[in-house]
Amino acid sequence: MISAEVLTIGDEILFGQITDTNTQWISAELTKIGVRTVRKTSVGDSREAILEAFNEAAKRVKIVIVTGGLGPTKDDITKKTFCDFFDTTLEINESALALITSFFVERGRSMTDLNRQQAAVPKNCTYVENRWGTAPGMWFDVNGVVWVSLPGVPFEMKNLMTKRILPMLQAHFKTPVIYHRMIRTVGIGESFLAERIEKWEDSLPENIKLAYLPHFGQVRLRLTATGDSLESLKSQTEAEVEKVLPLIGDAVFGFDADELETVVGGLLVARKQTLATAESCTGGYVAHRITSVVGCSDYYKGSVVAYSYELKTSELGVLQATLDQFGAVSEQTVREMAEGARTRLKTDWAVATSGIAGPGGGTADKPVGTIWIACAGPTGTVARKLLLTKYREMNIQLTATYVLDLLRKQIVHA
Amino acid sequence: MISAEVLTIGDEILFGQITDTNTQWISAELTKIGVRTVRKTSVGDSREAILEAFNEAAKRVKIVIVTGGLGPTKDDITKKTFCDFFDTTLEINESALALITSFFVERGRSMTDLNRQQAAVPKNCTYVENRWGTAPGMWFDVNGVVWVSLPGVPFEMKNLMTKRILPMLQAHFKTPVIYHRMIRTVGIGESFLAERIEKWEDSLPENIKLAYLPHFGQVRLRLTATGDSLESLKSQTEAEVEKVLPLIGDAVFGFDADELETVVGGLLVARKQTLATAESCTGGYVAHRITSVVGCSDYYKGSVVAYSYELKTSELGVLQATLDQFGAVSEQTVREMAEGARTRLKTDWAVATSGIAGPGGGTADKPVGTIWIACAGPTGTVARKLLLTKYREMNIQLTATYVLDLLRKQIVHA
Repeated sequence: MISAEVLTIGDEILFGQITDTNTQWISAELTKIGVRTVRKTSVGDSREAILEAFNEAAKRVKIVIVTGGLGPTKDDITKKTFCDFFDTTLEINESALALITSFFVERGRSMTDLNRQQAAVPKNCTYVENRWGTAPGMWFDVNGVVWVSLPGVPFEMKNLMTKRILPMLQAHFKTPVIYHRMIRTVGIGESFLAERIEKWEDSLPENIKLAYLPHFGQVRLRLTATGDSLESLKSQTEAEVEKVLPLIGDAVFGFDADELETVVGGLLVARKQTLATAESCTGGYVAHRITSVVGCSDYYKGSVVAYSYELKTSELGVLQATLDQFGAVSEQTVREMAEGARTRLKTDWAVATSGIAGPGGGTADKPVGTIWIACAGPTGTVARKLLLTKYREMNIQLTATYVLDLLRKQIVHA
Repeated sequence: MISAEVLTIGDEILFGQITDTNTQWISAELTKIGVRTVRKTSVGDSREAILEAFNEAAKRVKIVIVTGGLGPTKDDITKKTFCDFFDTTLEINESALALITSFFVERGRSMTDLNRQQAAVPKNCTYVENRWGTAPGMWFDVNGVVWVSLPGVPFEMKNLMTKRILPMLQAHFKTPVIYHRMIRTVGIGESFLAERIEKWEDSLPENIKLAYLPHFGQVRLRLTATGDSLESLKSQTEAEVEKVLPLIGDAVFGFDADELETVVGGLLVARKQTLATAESCTGGYVAHRITSVVGCSDYYKGSVVAYSYELKTSELGVLQATLDQFGAVSEQTVREMAEGARTRLKTDWAVATSGIAGPGGGTADKPVGTIWIACAGPTGTVARKLLLTKYREMNIQLTATYVLDLLRKQIVHA
């Protein structure tokens, strides 16, 4: 496999002032085209540190992806250091200058000399057009190593990588053809899942690799097939997917970029049905997940976040007697919350959550992490008890995932 | 300044399968004790790659913080590679073994030999007790370089760093005394803020550095004072803070770890007042921010997330005539939403949001990013219009920040 190093330049990253999300994204994208990241490096805005990193990388890998240090306020230290490294000088690239000029004309702003200097690139580089900002993309091919320099702004970097650099790398290195398929599961632990599909996994052909990617109550199974023809890899992989799906059952909620909230949205749209939520311990987070989906207003009417006892009765119609007898964290209360939301908000479906998110509020009977969820729908109401963790934030996230999954299963089986 | 390198070991990080949050956290903590991170490196679970990184780091820095590769399932490659690097062997550490044994006894589980091997450490290391997991912390002092090896699990790593390693580093290197103070502002752009406090910034004494850390509508100003005595640094820094606060005015909402939602919570608790929310475009995210604060049930009653027109009238009492005449995204509607929530949910304060989060739904009159926010309270109702971005997620986050800030100012000025 072709080897790569991802090199990030910037004091803010080195000192921990900003989160570097670029590096993970870049290495995941390289993996997808069959390039193996063998090193990630961050250095500060210092000529010596950058040159040292360049010299090391040149000995180690065939591809170096460099991000950062291209802003006009930063004295373009990356470009100048590339010039030192390759023993060349900067010159204005006319295509880059035309693009930057049109950028300013469109916005009715005047250009300074600093802006003009953004069009200068080392003489030995292939200029890569950046339509998403004013910093140039750059490609160097020197002594069998390809160097790519990109701005650190994630929006610009991602567009440049996806639309320009990745296809260029695939063409240049004649990387193997790769086909990816992600199976997304929820509510089944990694080790249980592994046990269930063990025989299938052992029988996978040599050219298909399986990775388990667990995250907050979900496990993604990623199949990566390598070969020469996309068509045959696709049919080969899909045949394996067909074999494994029955082994996992309804823990599979989707594929590739599917999220629980988008899958639930799709099911509701297809059925022309509507949804409401009634939240206590999740405090609006279920509603937030649902409303993060574009177009959710077609099926989602809204939520009552009933954090107080009072609102559970006044806004959701939970009986005072239920609260008195069983408490807010109980099957009875969460059922009445779901049914109350469904009736009051006039929807086909409603889900509810009530529990002890922590860190306080636990008892011997109901320790922190005890949470009830319910789903009310055309065929009745179901409730489930969850025993989660000691951690508030994790409990909120897991509860949202499990209640969306309960809803998904109820809709599918209705 | 003492220089450090943060070295992460693990294929999952290298291939972009998991997000590495450790590195940023570690370098931020090192910065706070006056240690300068000059390099961050990630390598895979390969002996050769780790040894190469060790050899490079030994020439470069005085402190190397290594995380990962300590799990029992990973064949403890980090420990073995340390042995190769230092030309030594593993031996069972009795303190570590006792701690691991008690870990299993407490949980009523039996120990395997694999678990027992977690107590083995290189002979030349100082064992650092890890009370938060079964992997040992390790400290090596070889040829003037300190090597620290920690598990990659964030919870364990953070506890080991904070409670053990950082104090050990401060003692070992006699690092300078450092005092940090963070001033947190909201609703004022970085460049405007910089202009307002320019003269003060220029007059800062040599030993106090200022950093601007902007993030989603907020700018944090971090003052870092370096010297010999904590007492004098503290009084020197606080005197500077006293000078700058009047220049910024009520854009300052707190200090250090304060968040808008905790500050608002504190104000409400002090006044024994209560809060409700009515959300349209933020879809539950304001409620989520408020309920992420431990103890919020003392003042927060709940929210009506009225995503549909219908719920705005039925659950919040917005007049049909208001919606017909002005639309959902209007000053009139958002005022009625806030007032409706305050009346219906019987609270002292209520905030409301209504706008076009995007990407669809914009018009020439009301483009995507047009958002109204309101706050109703004992002294009346105020509303503000926001013109934000094209991006749905960013609009939701910014709106939540601005409406919490509006509430904060109304409470303070009431």
